[in-house]
Amino acid sequence: MEPIKATGYFFTGPNLAFEKKEFEINSLADDEVIVQVAGCGLCHTDISFLTGQVKTKHELPLILGHEISGTVIQTGKHAEQFKATKVVIPAVLPCGDCDICHSGRDNVCQAQLMPGNDFHGGFATHIKVPAQHLCVLPEPLGDIKLASFSVVADAMTTPYQSLKRSNLKDGDVAIVIGVGGVGTYMVQHGKNIGATIIALDIDEKKLAHAKTMGASHTICVKGMAEHEVKKAVRTLVKENSLKKFGWKVFEMSGTAPGQMVAFSLLSFAGTLGVIGFTMEKVNIRLSNVMAFDADVFGNWGCSPKYYIDVVNDVLTGKINVVDNVEEHPLDDINKIIPLALEHKLEKRVIFTP
Amino acid sequence: MEPIKATGYFFTGPNLAFEKKEFEINSLADDEVIVQVAGCGLCHTDISFLTGQVKTKHELPLILGHEISGTVIQTGKHAEQFKATKVVIPAVLPCGDCDICHSGRDNVCQAQLMPGNDFHGGFATHIKVPAQHLCVLPEPLGDIKLASFSVVADAMTTPYQSLKRSNLKDGDVAIVIGVGGVGTYMVQHGKNIGATIIALDIDEKKLAHAKTMGASHTICVKGMAEHEVKKAVRTLVKENSLKKFGWKVFEMSGTAPGQMVAFSLLSFAGTLGVIGFTMEKVNIRLSNVMAFDADVFGNWGCSPKYYIDVVNDVLTGKINVVDNVEEHPLDDINKIIPLALEHKLEKRVIFTP
Repeated sequence: MEPIKATGYFFTGPNLAFEKKEFEINSLADDEVIVQVAGCGLCHTDISFLTGQVKTKHELPLILGHEISGTVIQTGKHAEQFKATKVVIPAVLPCGDCDICHSGRDNVCQAQLMPGNDFHGGFATHIKVPAQHLCVLPEPLGDIKLASFSVVADAMTTPYQSLKRSNLKDGDVAIVIGVGGVGTYMVQHGKNIGATIIALDIDEKKLAHAKTMGASHTICVKGMAEHEVKKAVRTLVKENSLKKFGWKVFEMSGTAPGQMVAFSLLSFAGTLGVIGFTMEKVNIRLSNVMAFDADVFGNWGCSPKYYIDVVNDVLTGKINVVDNVEEHPLDDINKIIPLALEHKLEKRVIFTP
Repeated sequence: MEPIKATGYFFTGPNLAFEKKEFEINSLADDEVIVQVAGCGLCHTDISFLTGQVKTKHELPLILGHEISGTVIQTGKHAEQFKATKVVIPAVLPCGDCDICHSGRDNVCQAQLMPGNDFHGGFATHIKVPAQHLCVLPEPLGDIKLASFSVVADAMTTPYQSLKRSNLKDGDVAIVIGVGGVGTYMVQHGKNIGATIIALDIDEKKLAHAKTMGASHTICVKGMAEHEVKKAVRTLVKENSLKKFGWKVFEMSGTAPGQMVAFSLLSFAGTLGVIGFTMEKVNIRLSNVMAFDADVFGNWGCSPKYYIDVVNDVLTGKINVVDNVEEHPLDDINKIIPLALEHKLEKRVIFTP
């Protein structure tokens, strides 16, 4: 193959600025492709790597970034059908051939690979990836930039997998706790299925945005105790003659207080989805799950098989991506990261090389 | 109707001996029947009422007991098809006509009635009940006494509902924590479906019994820390080449330590069933449910629709009831209760009037 000259931002150690470096891609396996990156989203997981809270599986230095869209510019012998296609690279790449994959739970395949964790990711001009699970975008893309599709990986598909797992239906009550970069898509997926969405957050601005994304009701829970939140939700449900049981609660905040509120909102035949992640423990009466005949689930990313559904929802306007992302040149990455650390970003950041 | 002269043991207040009293049943609604009690099981819930930990919904004095089998001796106008049948009375009697019932979750119907909680129960010679959900036993019953079928209600069917909810399959690994009066049936249901059963308990005697009931492996976890239990299970799974993921853990002990162990055994694509109940809270990293792409469920009793499956399993010998129960005359109830309080009973007690 013709070697590819690429540039990437390398993570060299906790709390250090990324190092810009050129590198060369000069080999390609039969089942791999090289993607010219159009955009790569900045995810909470990248921040966890950056602060040293979570360790990458691959040794450092490593290029982070796992929400990637781009154009295939070279293909291995067995991946020629991907030539010149525009793609989203799934954040989780299952092996496709183990017992877990065969059981339909490929998003937790134990041999899975994750860009920007197991191998060089998307904060770069180019990336080499296995072709098997690439999500090929149906063209034309209309008004939506190729870079914007990057957030399909993870931010948009993880809550879609949650939707599937929760079995949310038309007419159900969905309570979304935390309507930030991922929660805002949970609101949209739930709305698209016909559920009534109650959005909870501690930030009035995010709640106002959630309303424009399809939330029917919002409650600012800042400073409220769990029992006060529960009372407020119950009052709202009563006043609006919504279903009194079987609530589906989606915990997207990834905080212990968020999880405590979420658990306290379990109702008869209710469901709690744990989607946000925190290392913190919570003190809960687990037996409530029994007393309420309830379900709790969590999902690790999303199976690549669902990506195309979400892409189609973006293309048909059922999912609004434009108002939920902001683009920045990749060369500004070391300026943007501090803003992310200080929670000063209002929208999902996409870096464009 | 001809009034029925009955005798029952009345619960009059926490920690007081039951009072034997005669009473008369002299009215019968169109959809009700009178059952002559053959046997009534003593359940953990009765003990919770007795100690005052949980309050009955009906005011005191009240006849407790909700695991009841017997013979229908009088029928209301619309229940004539039950005349002279031998029946099990479900522990949970749903209304059959609300949104929850229509959604297939009738075991948490909010208008449900429970014998020995909402109305006079089975620690008596006779009981008046709504006929709608009675489980009619196919005759002949063979060698199994009618009284023995009483434990189908609750002890045998609650873990059957857990089996259904867990989606346990042939070839799966099922870990049953606590193999007492209910857990022993979880072992049998799991074995019948083709799962490999690992039984955990702090009592060697119960574990030895669980083995005769179908457990392939047992671990006495007395004095073991959570991580030691986890290690022991992992070693066992490895040595026996069992499935390394997707374990289905059934917490039957209804204790905080049991729940902690159960939660620590969550594995990739794993499932945890919370079947035992305790008021105690546990301190857990709820996010593990997300990291493992796992499921947690709990079930409140069992839908009456599954009772006949379990009855048939008893009749065909797939479920062993004989070795798991001991009969005592109802008149000994005040002698037996202290033994139950001191955990001195080895088998499920059935009181026969």
